[in-house]
Amino acid sequence: MPISKKATLLIRNIGHLVTMTGPVPRIGDGMKDVALIEGGGIAAAGDEILAVGGSDEVEGHTPLAEGCEVIDAGGRVATPGFIDPHTHPVFSMTREKEFEMRLEGKSYMEIAESGGGIRASVRDLRSTPVNVLMEKTTGRLDRFLRHGVTTIEAKSGYGLSTESELKQLEIIRDLGPLHPVEMVPTFLGAHEVPDEYRSKREDYIYLIINEMIPAVTSGGLAEFSDIFCEEGVYDIDESRRIQQAAADAGLKLKFHADELKSTGGAELAASMNARSADHLVYASDKGIRAMAASGTAAVLLPGTTFSLGGRQYAPARKMIEAGVAVALSTDCNPGSSYSESLPMIISLAAVQMRMTAAEAISAVTVNAAYAIGRESRLGQLKEGYQADITLWDMSDYRELPYHYGVNLASRVIKKGKLVSEC
Amino acid sequence: MPISKKATLLIRNIGHLVTMTGPVPRIGDGMKDVALIEGGGIAAAGDEILAVGGSDEVEGHTPLAEGCEVIDAGGRVATPGFIDPHTHPVFSMTREKEFEMRLEGKSYMEIAESGGGIRASVRDLRSTPVNVLMEKTTGRLDRFLRHGVTTIEAKSGYGLSTESELKQLEIIRDLGPLHPVEMVPTFLGAHEVPDEYRSKREDYIYLIINEMIPAVTSGGLAEFSDIFCEEGVYDIDESRRIQQAAADAGLKLKFHADELKSTGGAELAASMNARSADHLVYASDKGIRAMAASGTAAVLLPGTTFSLGGRQYAPARKMIEAGVAVALSTDCNPGSSYSESLPMIISLAAVQMRMTAAEAISAVTVNAAYAIGRESRLGQLKEGYQADITLWDMSDYRELPYHYGVNLASRVIKKGKLVSEC
Repeated sequence: MPISKKATLLIRNIGHLVTMTGPVPRIGDGMKDVALIEGGGIAAAGDEILAVGGSDEVEGHTPLAEGCEVIDAGGRVATPGFIDPHTHPVFSMTREKEFEMRLEGKSYMEIAESGGGIRASVRDLRSTPVNVLMEKTTGRLDRFLRHGVTTIEAKSGYGLSTESELKQLEIIRDLGPLHPVEMVPTFLGAHEVPDEYRSKREDYIYLIINEMIPAVTSGGLAEFSDIFCEEGVYDIDESRRIQQAAADAGLKLKFHADELKSTGGAELAASMNARSADHLVYASDKGIRAMAASGTAAVLLPGTTFSLGGRQYAPARKMIEAGVAVALSTDCNPGSSYSESLPMIISLAAVQMRMTAAEAISAVTVNAAYAIGRESRLGQLKEGYQADITLWDMSDYRELPYHYGVNLASRVIKKGKLVSEC
Repeated sequence: MPISKKATLLIRNIGHLVTMTGPVPRIGDGMKDVALIEGGGIAAAGDEILAVGGSDEVEGHTPLAEGCEVIDAGGRVATPGFIDPHTHPVFSMTREKEFEMRLEGKSYMEIAESGGGIRASVRDLRSTPVNVLMEKTTGRLDRFLRHGVTTIEAKSGYGLSTESELKQLEIIRDLGPLHPVEMVPTFLGAHEVPDEYRSKREDYIYLIINEMIPAVTSGGLAEFSDIFCEEGVYDIDESRRIQQAAADAGLKLKFHADELKSTGGAELAASMNARSADHLVYASDKGIRAMAASGTAAVLLPGTTFSLGGRQYAPARKMIEAGVAVALSTDCNPGSSYSESLPMIISLAAVQMRMTAAEAISAVTVNAAYAIGRESRLGQLKEGYQADITLWDMSDYRELPYHYGVNLASRVIKKGKLVSEC
């Protein structure tokens, strides 16, 4: 283990060091392999991992820089910093009243008629000053970090006008240097059809293709383009046209697909070589096979089913058996799933979708990195990778799904720096 | 508002001050009344609440003692410190391997045969030194506190011998002065029939009645006696005999009832004027009516159904409509429900049992206090009550169920002292 650089961070005495090194993405039985080192250590120089191995070996072979931060993990678990590949974090108004209306049996239509739903978030986003949105989004990033999450994908989609879509993406860009949580931006102008275009949806599609996408790409404001492909929102043909325009402009593709019904969204995502299709509660067998063949990741969002009081969860086991790279996400948003906790999502994936601890951890590290195009730098604890590390207050990584609803992230390291401690 | 004492704690500028004053316990529509003060304040002297009201009014009328702690809640929510009325917190070994075996489809019998289940916890408890148990239990109390819980009921039941049952109850007693979380002790010698008595269960019942109960009561080690009344554990007749002996010895009664099947547990608990019957997933209509009539609280444990991957939750709405005092608990234990988070349980109660935020908060404050016999001192923010207060990082109390899986308790006050801050 020849090391030329000096370590600025050394973590020793890690009980379960979950490295996640190995094939990218993890598929099939590969998702069961967390590449575990028992009694491990990690050294980093600046924002990069220098060495990963046995605790004594790493410590014995790594020269320490002056002022090196040395952390004794006391036999605890370390994993790569978790990655959330599907979030809608830029909003102001929370929607707890709608949540309560649903509990009391109100229908989606009744809630929409009383002024709720995604269009309420659009009205709110448009009228809220940037500084307020920055502050509220920062609170959410703080909570992600406290729950062990160091990178999130972050979507626009509550603006639905060129100006307000850019407003969200600029907030995501501007928060980048201000907060440890790293964000990968996604343009989601096709999240809904805004009120003012309900009677002329073709004009809104024209606007997305001819004004929004060029503005987003010329400003370098997004890496991905996403769309809500679903009956009553954007159909398969519309989704194909919009996403083709996005791909032609250089954006990588994601889809909200088959969330409420099986409409061929998974098939479309696979046929366009999308990096991921998300939700997929009602994905068809054909769509699942197509995703496995195209290498399109499945980003599953069990928190949304949970929070909406649903019974039907995405068929994770079928996808894993079919060779799809399964990732997990909070879907953090003000309507259908308000949570910043991937550990909570891991528990849901276990009890509702029968994913084991190892599979679920694969889904929020190496496979989540793959789903956002960061697999060459994030999601593994490996020499040369970014030093994003979470220490957990447990001695066995299998405690993660089992010890549910509590926050057990004890120390979070982003780019080699300790940024959160509980 | 004449005040003679000086305040040692003042909390001002509380957005939603959830006082919970009013009838005890809360039943029916009464559970929807959180007795809210908007823009509230609280003053306490020592461990006792002096004044509760509008922020300016409380501040203006309360003389402050020197060194008084003044907290500006910044418009956040305050509630009574949450109360968990059903926990099994004294254990060492966690059982994440069994959780994983269940995910992989192993049956209860296969897990038991491989050395798992409650009998594994009994073997472990008996062989673990007191200092290790104290340390592990302290970790759990810390997590309860961090999630806004200031009082828990704490059961024995992993000893199943006189010596080991006393060992647990003594740990609960000895931790009392060492930790802010207050514990109300319950004897649960009839949690299972231990291995060495499987072929002579009548001898074990004899032991409980003639040796354990006298030892527990003569040592003043428990306030309640609980029993696992269920087919294959203790039947109705055995439960009646054991609990009658406990009642005769001065213990108040609780029952694990109708968790797996409807066996008449709710009816038995009501007929014996138990303070609570717990679990109740399969409680009969007759049992529910009997509980309403006898004033026996229903302690519901949705986390257990969740963690076991079940589909059937206790019929909370039916109970509320029938006039039963419904409380909620984590059931924190190493087998079927490992969590210290009542906020998580509130979210589960909402999405799985259709309880509103107000009903769920009633269930972990005033009704939980009633379920453990502390309703004259805990569960309300009211002059003369103990100053147990949780501040939440939200501006509307309805965010509690909606913003799920994250810890939003920001400051926790026990007996007038700030004991946890996030």
